[in-house]
Amino acid sequence: MTAPLLGTSFIGYSRSSGTQVCGQGVNPGTGEKLAPAYLGATPDEVERAVALAAAAFPIYADLSGKARAGFLRAIAAGIEAAVEEIAARGPQETGLPEGRMRGETGRTTGQLRMFATLLEEGSWVDARIERAQPDRQPAPKPDLRSMLRPLGPVAVFCASNFPLAFSVAGGDTASALAAGCPVVVIAHASHPGIAEIVATAVVAAARETGMPEGVFSLLYGGGRMVGQAVVKHPVIQAVGFTGSRTAGMALMDTAAKRPQPIPVYAEMSSVNPVVILPGALARGEAALAEAYYGSLTLGVGQFCTNPGLVFLPEDRGDEFLARLKTLVETGAPGTMLNASICKAYAAASDVFASAPGVQTLARCASPAAPGQGAPVVFTVSIRDFMANDSLQGEIFGPGALIVRGGVAAIEASIATLEGQLTATVHATESELTACASLVFALQQRAGRLIFNGFPTGVEVCSSMVHGGPFPATSDGRSTSVGTLAIYRFCRAVAWQSFPQAALPAELQDLNPLGIKRME
Amino acid sequence: MTAPLLGTSFIGYSRSSGTQVCGQGVNPGTGEKLAPAYLGATPDEVERAVALAAAAFPIYADLSGKARAGFLRAIAAGIEAAVEEIAARGPQETGLPEGRMRGETGRTTGQLRMFATLLEEGSWVDARIERAQPDRQPAPKPDLRSMLRPLGPVAVFCASNFPLAFSVAGGDTASALAAGCPVVVIAHASHPGIAEIVATAVVAAARETGMPEGVFSLLYGGGRMVGQAVVKHPVIQAVGFTGSRTAGMALMDTAAKRPQPIPVYAEMSSVNPVVILPGALARGEAALAEAYYGSLTLGVGQFCTNPGLVFLPEDRGDEFLARLKTLVETGAPGTMLNASICKAYAAASDVFASAPGVQTLARCASPAAPGQGAPVVFTVSIRDFMANDSLQGEIFGPGALIVRGGVAAIEASIATLEGQLTATVHATESELTACASLVFALQQRAGRLIFNGFPTGVEVCSSMVHGGPFPATSDGRSTSVGTLAIYRFCRAVAWQSFPQAALPAELQDLNPLGIKRME
Repeated sequence: MTAPLLGTSFIGYSRSSGTQVCGQGVNPGTGEKLAPAYLGATPDEVERAVALAAAAFPIYADLSGKARAGFLRAIAAGIEAAVEEIAARGPQETGLPEGRMRGETGRTTGQLRMFATLLEEGSWVDARIERAQPDRQPAPKPDLRSMLRPLGPVAVFCASNFPLAFSVAGGDTASALAAGCPVVVIAHASHPGIAEIVATAVVAAARETGMPEGVFSLLYGGGRMVGQAVVKHPVIQAVGFTGSRTAGMALMDTAAKRPQPIPVYAEMSSVNPVVILPGALARGEAALAEAYYGSLTLGVGQFCTNPGLVFLPEDRGDEFLARLKTLVETGAPGTMLNASICKAYAAASDVFASAPGVQTLARCASPAAPGQGAPVVFTVSIRDFMANDSLQGEIFGPGALIVRGGVAAIEASIATLEGQLTATVHATESELTACASLVFALQQRAGRLIFNGFPTGVEVCSSMVHGGPFPATSDGRSTSVGTLAIYRFCRAVAWQSFPQAALPAELQDLNPLGIKRME
Repeated sequence: MTAPLLGTSFIGYSRSSGTQVCGQGVNPGTGEKLAPAYLGATPDEVERAVALAAAAFPIYADLSGKARAGFLRAIAAGIEAAVEEIAARGPQETGLPEGRMRGETGRTTGQLRMFATLLEEGSWVDARIERAQPDRQPAPKPDLRSMLRPLGPVAVFCASNFPLAFSVAGGDTASALAAGCPVVVIAHASHPGIAEIVATAVVAAARETGMPEGVFSLLYGGGRMVGQAVVKHPVIQAVGFTGSRTAGMALMDTAAKRPQPIPVYAEMSSVNPVVILPGALARGEAALAEAYYGSLTLGVGQFCTNPGLVFLPEDRGDEFLARLKTLVETGAPGTMLNASICKAYAAASDVFASAPGVQTLARCASPAAPGQGAPVVFTVSIRDFMANDSLQGEIFGPGALIVRGGVAAIEASIATLEGQLTATVHATESELTACASLVFALQQRAGRLIFNGFPTGVEVCSSMVHGGPFPATSDGRSTSVGTLAIYRFCRAVAWQSFPQAALPAELQDLNPLGIKRME
């Protein structure tokens, strides 16, 4: 894994022969351009990648879960073997520290192995068997059996803020490959080198484990050109995306306008409200402010679960605010992922700063160098908040808005919030019980509810829900993290009166895979 | 249940005071108008029905499964008690025979009780519990628990072809109510009286079991006016529909253009291909033709699963065709559901009859009276079929197209078909194994595969899939029949670090409901 980066797309097992430069890595801290220049996939190459995925699909979909698990484990091993390359290249391309690169590598390989374990166990397919009752009156009951089957080839878009865990071999790819869907990945312009390192590992794993060519391709050239072409292609049956609301909604629009509309799983925009009740303040305002500040500024605030909106009782919390003010003012700016995110952060902060009734509680005193984002916290009354929908917008970065109001007004305000990935309550247990209707309102608007904690740090496990009503995600019935993510790329199929030999192993009488079934 | 029909909408527990007539029942066989005239819901009443649903939602969603099951069972009992009224009114409004009315009443009450049983057992919520690991390195693992929760108020459109099983208290309503979602039903203009009889039973059951007002409303006034207004309303969180492709796509479009897009489960259009291989013909062509004719003409062909497209080997099947010809020619026309379906059937038949290369194999010799549809069967070569996409269109009624070709050409043709609810293969077991790639191609395009049978007669059970890729349904990941239908109206929610008392019973340590969980 010490081959030099080539700067070209992966079209199945071949490398692109494109000649047009579409971009290259840029160090967001220094502005330095990083070799090599990346060549965009040509329209013919896009077509070829998709055609290979279509040809691979019947073969890949019918492999055993164990065979697909072997592929996922080989990818994980290959990425692990490349961790030094990732740790070297990643910080240059993303501004993220080396430790984060190593940690995110571990999360990514962990995700792949989690899905491998799910496949090896095998019961996830929800096999259901109802045997024939030929003598039933008034009509015989036929033999009916159902299980989940893969949708078909899937388009996956890499995310800027998770160059590994939500990119080439991240959660979307891992869950789609686990489901039995070939994947065509569209690289993010922000970290083309990490994408190439990881894709090299994926392709090597595919070859090594005998996967059909086309089970994976990686295309450079950007979401607007190459990405839209892939999403429009009739072969593609679903889309995974993490990124901005604008880009996600453009994909939703394209998918809805296809002759055959397809599902889009876009994780887009969330401000992750935090409701602080008096009892939580009574436990110690300064400590709460410190914990909150840590979550707000983690990763320079560039997480989907960043808690950017706080509801604070209007008649208390002075010490919380004072401590938060000090932390923000004495905090440090951080290098953001790329120049456009940095610019958008500054612009969103300016919109908030100049909105009616909004006060700036604190700004980081250290000046932000080019490419950096600095913490900032605003406050506003709940009346002014409710009068201005734009204050529900996301400040992607370490910026927050604190809304002051009475508990009843807070509850009324929550009923007007858009959909969120997470919602958090800081309270005593008795307050939590007393404000059940407020908690229900939060539940209606979020995929995950957190008590006395913070939403950053998304656990990858079977009970995680990293989704939520629109616009947090395009499809609030889905999660992009955890084992439930596999269900995005499946649908149930029923077999009626089929002979044993023609049934999938999961549905045969003898249950050769030994899985749990409904029968 | 012998009160006269009032001809007004049900706005929660009140009856509409609308004054504008929107239509009335018409006997499709005689053209006779049936009293009473029906009054359309006013915009204020639509608003009130939706507002009541919104107010009912937090209460209804938090009822126990057993309480919701009691409601469903009370609805079933109420509909059963009204079976004589249904059997009297139904044939007048729909042209369907009395026996069908009684049978469909049984199917409808059976569906309601099936969901009640699912709720009483309780494990369907997919409860997942992962306990905290405070000492885990490098970071503690929080307590995380997830389960399915209802989406919110749902709009349900009644279908013309199932005045009970896919209408006021049909599968969409039963599954949405089971999930915990209040339902606003939009009546179908074709059977307003049956709708009123059933709605009366639903409202009585809601009162009797102490459900919150607004858990159910029934609106008259049509899909285009009242229906669109309901689907656009921000309170509504999902839509269930069975009907034409045009109407279903209009709802998809409206839902996609909302500020918050919502899922639409529209079951629309399917021609349900039947592939006949030589071995099946060798078993007896005449018997196969008779069985096929029975399925094609059942209910005057007005089923979503009507097998309207047959692939037959080009070099055999003469006796199959000869027998089918006789059956069609000596068959009887039947009264169709309403005048517009009858007109559309005649128009679609004419399009097929005049398409290039299409021959009319047989037409029913008895003349069709006004309101009737008569069987007709066309044949076409596979080359002409593949050259003309319009031949993939649905003839809603007892009309079929038989495509003649070689097995390889049939397989190639299947790869070009649109999505279907069902796909059927008639073959020997060894042929089925030998043509695995053909079966895989069918599987990719259908929700249910049938071997040596016919698709009509949809079993209501746990392993039924009555869905399929677009345009069979708007969302090919869903089914509108069977217990899996409940999952259309849910999403997973996770609770992180919540105290026991604030968790749903399904997720509490003590498992007070005794359900199966992942833990």
